[in-house]
Amino acid sequence: MTKFTADEANAFLNGAFPGRGDENQVVLMEPGRAIVRLEADARHLRPGGYISGPTQMSLADTAAYMAIMTVTGLEPMTVTSNLNINFLRPCIGKAVLAEGRLMKIGQALAVIEVDVRIEGAEKPASHAIVTYALPRKD
Amino acid sequence: MTKFTADEANAFLNGAFPGRGDENQVVLMEPGRAIVRLEADARHLRPGGYISGPTQMSLADTAAYMAIMTVTGLEPMTVTSNLNINFLRPCIGKAVLAEGRLMKIGQALAVIEVDVRIEGAEKPASHAIVTYALPRKD
Amino acid sequence: MTKFTADEANAFLNGAFPGRGDENQVVLMEPGRAIVRLEADARHLRPGGYISGPTQMSLADTAAYMAIMTVTGLEPMTVTSNLNINFLRPCIGKAVLAEGRLMKIGQALAVIEVDVRIEGAEKPASHAIVTYALPRKD
Amino acid sequence: MTKFTADEANAFLNGAFPGRGDENQVVLMEPGRAIVRLEADARHLRPGGYISGPTQMSLADTAAYMAIMTVTGLEPMTVTSNLNINFLRPCIGKAVLAEGRLMKIGQALAVIEVDVRIEGAEKPASHAIVTYALPRKD
Repeated sequence: MTKFTADEANAFLNGAFPGRGDENQVVLMEPGRAIVRLEADARHLRPGGYISGPTQMSLADTAAYMAIMTVTGLEPMTVTSNLNINFLRPCIGKAVLAEGRLMKIGQALAVIEVDVRIEGAEKPASHAIVTYALPRKD
Repeated sequence: MTKFTADEANAFLNGAFPGRGDENQVVLMEPGRAIVRLEADARHLRPGGYISGPTQMSLADTAAYMAIMTVTGLEPMTVTSNLNINFLRPCIGKAVLAEGRLMKIGQALAVIEVDVRIEGAEKPASHAIVTYALPRKD
Repeated sequence: MTKFTADEANAFLNGAFPGRGDENQVVLMEPGRAIVRLEADARHLRPGGYISGPTQMSLADTAAYMAIMTVTGLEPMTVTSNLNINFLRPCIGKAVLAEGRLMKIGQALAVIEVDVRIEGAEKPASHAIVTYALPRKD
Repeated sequence: MTKFTADEANAFLNGAFPGRGDENQVVLMEPGRAIVRLEADARHLRPGGYISGPTQMSLADTAAYMAIMTVTGLEPMTVTSNLNINFLRPCIGKAVLAEGRLMKIGQALAVIEVDVRIEGAEKPASHAIVTYALPRKD
C-alpha cells in the first residue's frame, strides 16, 4: 500500500526543505517505486551543455528518499549513508527523470537502485545505488 | 607545478558554469590538491538542520574536478565517471570545506579522494572517491 | 551475436587463470549477459554458515568480465577499474549464481550490473556495479 | 586499547573460517588499524601476471574486518554491508599488504579505508572503502 501520493510527497518536500525551490517534482509514488522530475535550466548545465553530475546526484538522492517513503510513510530523518553513481552517457535535454526502486529494506538500512534518464530517452544517463539509514524505532 | 591559482580557478568556474551562482569558492590550488569552500544558507539544509547530502556531493565533485586541473591545467571537458560518497557524521555549521587529493592520474582516468568537513572541525562529515574521465589527446 | 559459448568461456578461464581451480563455471553466454555458477564448499563460508563476501565479489567480478566478452570476444587484458557491491541478504545455500548484464560499453570503459543469488532464490543476496577498463585499440 | 594481538587475530580467523587456508596473515593490530599480508602464488594471479582483483578485494575485506575488531574485540558476526574498490595501478610482486584504518564506528555501522600495496611499494595498487554492519547490542 502506498503511504502517500505524489502531491503529498511534494508538499512534504517543500515543507522539509524550505530552501530547495520547487525544482525536483515527485511525479509518481507507488509501493517501492518513486519517480522525480526536473525541468533543467542554466543552473543545471555543465560545459558541453550536459545536465551536470551534481544535478543528477541530487535527483537520484531524492528519488531514493521518496522510494523509501512509499513503504515507511513520512520519515524526514531517514539519511543517506552511501551513494554510488556511474555516469553512462551524456545527459542532454529539457527534462530529466530519476526512478528509484527499493532493492531492500531492513531494520537499519534501505538500498535503492536509481536510473536517471532524459524524459523520453530509452537508455539511462546515469545509474545510482543509494543506501539510507532508517531512524531507529525504540 | 600548479597550473593556476585559486582566483583563476574561480574565474574559470564562473565562466564554465554560468548558472551556478558563486557558492562554491576555490580557496586553495596546489599540485594534486584543491580545497573548495561553501557558506551554507537555507538552500543547503535538510531536516535536522544538517547540510544536505546533495550539497556535500556537489562540493566533493567540484573539489575533485579542480584537483585534476592543478595538474592538467584548464580542461572543462573532464567529466565525472563515478562518484562514491559515504556520510560519516552530521554536518552542521556555517561553512563547509571539501578537500580533494589526487590518488592517481592516468591517460584515461583520474581518481581523487575527497574529505568534506565543517570549517574548523577535525573529523570529516563525509568522504568521497571520485573518478573522472579525461579528454582524449589525439 | 555472442562471440563464444559457455564451454569456450570456461576453457578460456582455465587457460588464463591456471591457478583458479575450476570453481566458477560459466553456464550462460548471450549478447550482453553472462551467468557464472559456484558450488560452495567449506572454503567459501563465513561465520553463520553464509557464503562469504569475498566469494560473492569474485563471482560478480567473473560474471562482469564474461558479460563484456559476449560482445568483445576474447580480451584477457580487460581489467577491473571499480567494483561496488552491496550485500542485501544472507547468502545461504549450496550453489550460487552471478548474472552480469552490460549497462554500457564505450571505447574506454564498460559498466556491468551483477546480481548474485542462491540458485532457485528469487531475491539477490548481493548486487554489484563493476567497471572494466577495455584495452586500447591503436 | 587494542583488544587482541596479531597472533590472536590469526587464531581467530583460522577458527572462524576453517576452509580459508592460512593465506591472509594478520601482521599488525593496533587501535583502529590492522595490516594483513598475503604471499601470492599462481592461484592469485590474473593474465599479465598481476595479483588478481578478487585477491585484492578479499585482502581488503579482511583488513577492514580486523580493523574493526581492534576496537570492538571478537565479533565474528560483523558483516560487510558495502565494499567499493578502485584499482589504481598494476599489482605485481610476491607479497601484498592491505592496511585498514577505521574512519568511523557508530552503533550500527563502521566505515574503513583500506590501501592495498605490494610490500615495499610506495603507492597503493588499489584503494577500498568498506562498510560493515555491527551486530546489534540488545
